[in-house]
Amino acid sequence: MQLLEDRILRDGKVKDGSVLKVDSFLNHQMDVKLFGEMAKEFYNLFQADKVNKILTIEASGIGIACITAQVFDCPVIFAKKTKTKNIAGEVYTSKVESFTHGVVYDIIVAKEFLGPDDRVLIIDDFLANGAALTGLADIVCQAGATLVGAGIAIEKAFQPGGDLLRGQGMRIESLARIKSMSPGKVEFIH
Amino acid sequence: MQLLEDRILRDGKVKDGSVLKVDSFLNHQMDVKLFGEMAKEFYNLFQADKVNKILTIEASGIGIACITAQVFDCPVIFAKKTKTKNIAGEVYTSKVESFTHGVVYDIIVAKEFLGPDDRVLIIDDFLANGAALTGLADIVCQAGATLVGAGIAIEKAFQPGGDLLRGQGMRIESLARIKSMSPGKVEFIH
Repeated sequence: MQLLEDRILRDGKVKDGSVLKVDSFLNHQMDVKLFGEMAKEFYNLFQADKVNKILTIEASGIGIACITAQVFDCPVIFAKKTKTKNIAGEVYTSKVESFTHGVVYDIIVAKEFLGPDDRVLIIDDFLANGAALTGLADIVCQAGATLVGAGIAIEKAFQPGGDLLRGQGMRIESLARIKSMSPGKVEFIH
Repeated sequence: MQLLEDRILRDGKVKDGSVLKVDSFLNHQMDVKLFGEMAKEFYNLFQADKVNKILTIEASGIGIACITAQVFDCPVIFAKKTKTKNIAGEVYTSKVESFTHGVVYDIIVAKEFLGPDDRVLIIDDFLANGAALTGLADIVCQAGATLVGAGIAIEKAFQPGGDLLRGQGMRIESLARIKSMSPGKVEFIH
């Protein structure tokens, strides 16, 4: 998606290692106009798939997921990263390793919100090692729901998650796929 | 706001103590159509205030904030609850005590996204003891920005946060103000 690639080139900053800082428009400050254009693109890609639930994970996926859900006219569920007092009853759970934070955490979704009749589109801001996406897909599977696919804003295609999960048959559509990056330089796959 | 009150009466569940479970439409599964109506109501209330930034806190405020930001045509910033590797540089920070989770955490906002020229509307899903709102207002103050007010989905008016902060001069507009609640019964203030 040209608009997102242009924005990454203009405002993204590559930090040491493999960190792409896009917190001026994607995951700290959020440009909801850009999200609106991304949502339309996700709709173009998945409109034939009868999506009736969008699943994401807190926190930075929520904004994109909500604005995408407006276009699909369906609710969003966000997986929570720890069990809180406010979640009563039974939950689906999976484990996710965060490479950014260096920890493993549980993600949970209340069973009442996901079941065999659901056709689920996963939305997230980043795909790198695929840990979050694997955990979310596991929860969709546990629910007996149909995973239509995943819509990702930025895929670090030089990390293994995307290839691995596509190899397992998951449909993944990333709006910007980064082939390589270094300070001052980002190259995309088209 | 009648629509939100009706939804609370229909789908909200009062749990032991002072927990109102609204996770079927507000803070786990999210009804983005309802959020759209709430956003219009926030706009009616604050449209004269030249809002140019919406500030919220992860995670459950983000969805409402993003959809509200579409109506105000401005970006959203969400305060993060811990310092992550992806936030480089200087940040505003404040402490928030979570009564739900029984912990005190730091919230941070990168300094580059908030400054003296900003007119900030805080958006959040709940107001009870006012801890999150106090922390967010502190960050707006540290930035030298103008706090226009706070738009809250559900205020537990039987808890002290709303009265306390209004007493300090903060403009708070809550779309549903709960006077009292017990299992099977919720009463609102109009």
